[in-house]
Amino acid sequence: MPRFVLKIEYDGRPFAGWQAQADQPSVQGAVEAALARLDPGFASGARIAAAGRTDAGVHATAQVAHADLARDWDPFRLAEALNFHLKPAPVAILAAARVSQDFHARFSATERRYLFRLQARRAPATHDRGLVWQVLHPLDADAMRQAAAHLVGRHDFTTFRSAMCQSASPVKTLDEIRVEESPIPHGREYRFHLRARSFLHNQVRSIVGTLERVGAGSWAPDRVAQALSARNRAECGPVCPPHGLYLCGVGYPRDPFAA
Amino acid sequence: MPRFVLKIEYDGRPFAGWQAQADQPSVQGAVEAALARLDPGFASGARIAAAGRTDAGVHATAQVAHADLARDWDPFRLAEALNFHLKPAPVAILAAARVSQDFHARFSATERRYLFRLQARRAPATHDRGLVWQVLHPLDADAMRQAAAHLVGRHDFTTFRSAMCQSASPVKTLDEIRVEESPIPHGREYRFHLRARSFLHNQVRSIVGTLERVGAGSWAPDRVAQALSARNRAECGPVCPPHGLYLCGVGYPRDPFAA
Repeated sequence: MPRFVLKIEYDGRPFAGWQAQADQPSVQGAVEAALARLDPGFASGARIAAAGRTDAGVHATAQVAHADLARDWDPFRLAEALNFHLKPAPVAILAAARVSQDFHARFSATERRYLFRLQARRAPATHDRGLVWQVLHPLDADAMRQAAAHLVGRHDFTTFRSAMCQSASPVKTLDEIRVEESPIPHGREYRFHLRARSFLHNQVRSIVGTLERVGAGSWAPDRVAQALSARNRAECGPVCPPHGLYLCGVGYPRDPFAA
Repeated sequence: MPRFVLKIEYDGRPFAGWQAQADQPSVQGAVEAALARLDPGFASGARIAAAGRTDAGVHATAQVAHADLARDWDPFRLAEALNFHLKPAPVAILAAARVSQDFHARFSATERRYLFRLQARRAPATHDRGLVWQVLHPLDADAMRQAAAHLVGRHDFTTFRSAMCQSASPVKTLDEIRVEESPIPHGREYRFHLRARSFLHNQVRSIVGTLERVGAGSWAPDRVAQALSARNRAECGPVCPPHGLYLCGVGYPRDPFAA
């Protein structure tokens, strides 16, 4: 059966997360329901595999999943047909491509990129509601950058992983945390860009929630280094809410969407 | 009674427009309901006046309205109290200020600024659904800029106004149309920035709908000049949908929000 890879954008607001669950709307379920309209295997319960299983309320601008289909679709037509059947769910197939059988969306991935959007202003968000995490106080971007620098590199991230994390090891290499600051009407937006081969469960939200405490002045930047070396979940700052988080890229040894 | 001016941001999606209407949710109605929680005049039916009455589905990042209140509020506390009572409507008071009795949000205004967001890509919008107008074909920004240049200046805009427009004269001076182009994932976004002392009803949507035809290659840029000089509504391109339109600024001889 020919294998296809899909680049998927979605608004996480109406979903209980990526992963299909009984009686709960999921992004995986929405994509599989669209595939079931086109393909007999999915009509009888075939599944797709994704690079990252995002939690409830988390968004994606470039999730990647693969599917084995009965027919050898033209990739452009496959994306168009899926987008037609996905309506009105806020899920869009941005690109599709044919890949070899040894490509696996999750196991072949060598890099994940996440964005976290944090806004600081008094007035509530309107257009961006559910798309950003908002705090009411101003933040110090340079202090957050100083603190973030302690986390880059290979570390035991026990402090910054969920108690429910199923990863075999807490040791991960964080390749980058970049903090961008930009003005919004009557406030500021902080965008955290994180890049690693893979992340622990809740690692990004644990890190951003902790960096926000530094930005607010409650934590000195060095306290983040101490929290990291403590390897103790209790030393983590508050885990921030999911709705500012975006899976925005997955890297492979060779880009499966390259022409 | 002390007069206050409010800078208001809103998501137009759930509203039948700015203007209060019986049995329909309106932005004006939402703000007046919040004022009624704070002020006896509004509890008995006082009204606010706004710089621009936006249509159903149209957004604002900086609508301006004024209100006469019984009490001499601290402006910051007034904005905070209104934002508290506005919840959960997607309407935010960005700023409030005390103004003199001769200030009128509509009649004192000397400039209105609108933004129109148009996205060109095949895959449907997800996070931006209802916040942009989307077309599926690529657009030529330079052709749209050439066409737009014909509209700048003082003209009879009969071609570009709604048949229902109540303005006494179709002659308006359009001070600027600027077209910005930027990449979005697997597509392009075109932002139209329009600036004038005042606009006719549906003028921005008539202009952007016509410029899109030029960008798509259906109209030569010069046809816009001919349509303008025809002073004939039938010569207008298709009026574009409301949901990419934002009232994003109102100018006054002296900025009422300046400290």
